[in-house]
Amino acid sequence: MSTRIPIVEGLPELPATDVLDALRAAFSELAGDKAAQPPQTVTLLPGGGDVIAYQAATSDAYGVKVSPYLPQADGRAVVTAWTLLVSTRTGRPLLLCDAGALTVQRTAATSALAVDELARPGAAALAVIGSGPLARAHLRYARVVRDFTSVRMYSPSLTTAAAPEGVSVTGSAEDAVAGADVVLLCTSAAEPVIDAAGLRPGTVVTSISTNAPRAHEIAPAALASLDVYGDYRPTVTATAGEMVIAAERGLWSAGHLRGDLPELLAGTCPPPGGDRPVFFRSVGLGIEDLAVARLLLDRS
Amino acid sequence: MSTRIPIVEGLPELPATDVLDALRAAFSELAGDKAAQPPQTVTLLPGGGDVIAYQAATSDAYGVKVSPYLPQADGRAVVTAWTLLVSTRTGRPLLLCDAGALTVQRTAATSALAVDELARPGAAALAVIGSGPLARAHLRYARVVRDFTSVRMYSPSLTTAAAPEGVSVTGSAEDAVAGADVVLLCTSAAEPVIDAAGLRPGTVVTSISTNAPRAHEIAPAALASLDVYGDYRPTVTATAGEMVIAAERGLWSAGHLRGDLPELLAGTCPPPGGDRPVFFRSVGLGIEDLAVARLLLDRS
Repeated sequence: MSTRIPIVEGLPELPATDVLDALRAAFSELAGDKAAQPPQTVTLLPGGGDVIAYQAATSDAYGVKVSPYLPQADGRAVVTAWTLLVSTRTGRPLLLCDAGALTVQRTAATSALAVDELARPGAAALAVIGSGPLARAHLRYARVVRDFTSVRMYSPSLTTAAAPEGVSVTGSAEDAVAGADVVLLCTSAAEPVIDAAGLRPGTVVTSISTNAPRAHEIAPAALASLDVYGDYRPTVTATAGEMVIAAERGLWSAGHLRGDLPELLAGTCPPPGGDRPVFFRSVGLGIEDLAVARLLLDRS
Repeated sequence: MSTRIPIVEGLPELPATDVLDALRAAFSELAGDKAAQPPQTVTLLPGGGDVIAYQAATSDAYGVKVSPYLPQADGRAVVTAWTLLVSTRTGRPLLLCDAGALTVQRTAATSALAVDELARPGAAALAVIGSGPLARAHLRYARVVRDFTSVRMYSPSLTTAAAPEGVSVTGSAEDAVAGADVVLLCTSAAEPVIDAAGLRPGTVVTSISTNAPRAHEIAPAALASLDVYGDYRPTVTATAGEMVIAAERGLWSAGHLRGDLPELLAGTCPPPGGDRPVFFRSVGLGIEDLAVARLLLDRS
């Protein structure tokens, strides 16, 4: 009864460039059929709540992240996430880690990767909608891929005193988005938070929304007027609320997705046309969890 | 960066009666909708091989067993299994354990539970086909649920010197099975190992087969002349090789399954009719892995 596998808890500090490199490598492996990315599964718990399992495998490791959503008597919910990494050379565990903070980082880094692929090189004005940990992580990673000279942030509760350094707080989402080259939607809203119709051609909007079924941060009807990309074609079109709803209503279909991150990195999908705003939606993938857990292992 | 969760490796000794009780409780929870049992998932690895994930949840814990099958250059395969238990009260890990030996025990105990439910109380003659760890575990658990006065065992390589105590070695599977009340098929064969047509009415045959697609230990055509039960209705009929093949050929259908372990324990399916041999097939379930890991946790 002994172990040699590391168990990592808490919030590890990972360099943003390392996380971006790890994710870029993982999505490139997926593009080259050197990785496996099955759909996430949801297990409904008999007492209420659920556990989402995110699996993935690369050339030498398999990972599963389990994320329980546990409603409590006081109306709140406990949400945790743990990743188990297993070597596909030896079959032995490599790492069990608290994936709560890692999930925030991999989600933000994935959006930043998309910004790097989709936004024009000179993009200078950034808008961030939301001000929680996900929004702050998005800001951190976005600043690595572009030199933003203007950053505006909006959330209903945000004050100037509480804003990150170098960030202007606006009184509305519209004010934050006006004139922006890149808009990062980082809310837990399940309803549209900006009006996509007001966006300029070439503006890149990223959206993560929440795991709630059919949740969305832009109006489903707006998809038809956007160049739409996603993190991974098979999962995003089946899961993203605005895509599911738009497809049901006949307003848009999965075939209109211009590309996903593996395709963007491999250069096998068209870049944005330049005549419409650009929308990138991620729902989160096991391969992102695997990539950051690998990074943690390499550093532990 | 610390941990308080136990990691258990190696082969723990669990009392057979405790394992049987734990499985009986878990299958009863499943019967009462107090447990969740999603289908297993198979992730094909980019370099060959796969990882099967077995998930389940009961009232206060969620478990996932990951079992990699990793072909090696010498033609052999590395097979391991690890179970992660997470509390559905706190969302925190409870245990990470080596599930290799536990898988053998839960598989054998599940067959023994079925024998307890399906075999006549006075069943006295036992036949075991196979002589590896799974066969020996089956023998151990079967002896807990019935007082067998005669035990015959057959495998091509088995000698009397290598046989378990109190066991007669036969020269063929037919000789072992002749006159048996209970027949435990514990082989890694992917083809029929006994002729089900020669069985007496009321004889109970259990079969575990292997994870290989379409693997089976009895002829698919034999199902039509047997009272057929399984470990869990939704998964066994979709996965067991002989059931899948028989259904494809129109020889049998899932609707002919008389019952499963949750139904047998709850008394909501018909018992064997007594006029035909009885066949019980298990493919293995996450809830079994969860139950034995819980037991290990309680004792660690």
